[in-house]
Amino acid sequence: MANNKPTLYTSLSPALLHLYDLRNAVVVIIDVFRATSTIASALHNGAQCVIPVDEVAKAIALSKHVNGIAAGERDGKIADGLEHGNSPLEYSPEFIKGRTLVLTTTNGTKLLQMALDNEADTIITGSFPNLSAVCDYLVKENKNVVLGCAGWKDRYNLEDTLFAGAVISRIKEHFTIHCDSSLTAEMQYNTVKDDLHAFAPNLTHYHRLVDRFGLIEDIRFCMTPDIANVLPLYKEGMLLAQ
Amino acid sequence: MANNKPTLYTSLSPALLHLYDLRNAVVVIIDVFRATSTIASALHNGAQCVIPVDEVAKAIALSKHVNGIAAGERDGKIADGLEHGNSPLEYSPEFIKGRTLVLTTTNGTKLLQMALDNEADTIITGSFPNLSAVCDYLVKENKNVVLGCAGWKDRYNLEDTLFAGAVISRIKEHFTIHCDSSLTAEMQYNTVKDDLHAFAPNLTHYHRLVDRFGLIEDIRFCMTPDIANVLPLYKEGMLLAQ
Repeated sequence: MANNKPTLYTSLSPALLHLYDLRNAVVVIIDVFRATSTIASALHNGAQCVIPVDEVAKAIALSKHVNGIAAGERDGKIADGLEHGNSPLEYSPEFIKGRTLVLTTTNGTKLLQMALDNEADTIITGSFPNLSAVCDYLVKENKNVVLGCAGWKDRYNLEDTLFAGAVISRIKEHFTIHCDSSLTAEMQYNTVKDDLHAFAPNLTHYHRLVDRFGLIEDIRFCMTPDIANVLPLYKEGMLLAQ
Repeated sequence: MANNKPTLYTSLSPALLHLYDLRNAVVVIIDVFRATSTIASALHNGAQCVIPVDEVAKAIALSKHVNGIAAGERDGKIADGLEHGNSPLEYSPEFIKGRTLVLTTTNGTKLLQMALDNEADTIITGSFPNLSAVCDYLVKENKNVVLGCAGWKDRYNLEDTLFAGAVISRIKEHFTIHCDSSLTAEMQYNTVKDDLHAFAPNLTHYHRLVDRFGLIEDIRFCMTPDIANVLPLYKEGMLLAQ
């Protein structure tokens, strides 16, 4: 049974992240709807970097300081005081190329801060739009991995788990996986992978975004593999394309 | 969309239980391997009651006081200082009929205490051996439901989630369910329900119990629907068969 493969665990909610040892691990921050999809979109379209922050006031102050764009959402809509939100479709090359995006979101940026507080060795962000880049990086690094699902206000959500399952299904032979969360993630992904878009209306978060805000195109982008295939790596306060 | 059906939520770990409002809800404590299977077994075989306690010393003291049987486990084996463990097969009618079982376990009894601390309206315990009794009770009560998975030291485990899925698949038309945890539970259950026993070796907890302690017969019992079909209801410190 013994082998030298690094371990891979899945944390289904930020409230469970403390159960895993992050100190020697690459932590993948997963917030499919929509923070980590938006981060992939912005960097893929040429943003210089994305700076994740936890408060709207900080986003505004910092964006002025770096001549960047302050953006973010609270409860699914553009946060009060900001002009730009958390939609991956807002950040076209014409708009974002060469600029800095200062982003604050309900769940993803909070989880990233938790990974920092828990001394993660390395932090990257992942979603379907950059699935291959994430998988390639994890295999290349050959370190322990924790797939960190951002969920919704500490509640489990299935879209983040589906992305974890997509990663596991691609790279599992490179890791030691002994974790029911990862087992569930992979099983769930295998059940619906043939038509993620058709499955989407089953997700609670789909209704939050589509019924209230009409964001069906956002959903499609966020569930399309490799549409913005870049690897966002966190370094000294910034997410930079590798 | 509006209806008058009560809500049903699934909490995938004790570390997530605080996210749900238990005050008007029936909380189902689920610890398939093995506490809530053992509770069903003991009560089905005629135990007068089961008293769940959080510490071994309390179990010993209380069992002397009520002339009962002190039992329990820590990390999967009989706890130091106790003669009886957490195996549903230990509690035959010949042994347990008319007697009081004072039980302490790693996960199940802790979760039950959390439900009490969070002012649950009603607490019952469930596992495959008493699946029908649980479902019948929840439909009859017609109150909000929280299915509380005990997990393993706050980590998610799949066997508790599968039981939640079994309950949901049977009674979902009686409830308003808008919860990705419940969606995952039902999907996972539907994927493996045709042969739960064949699926069991995929579970991390299976290896903890079978590889280390040879408890394959315990596993079979714990995953057999309605083999001890009784409804354990918590009242004033005791679980009593309804």
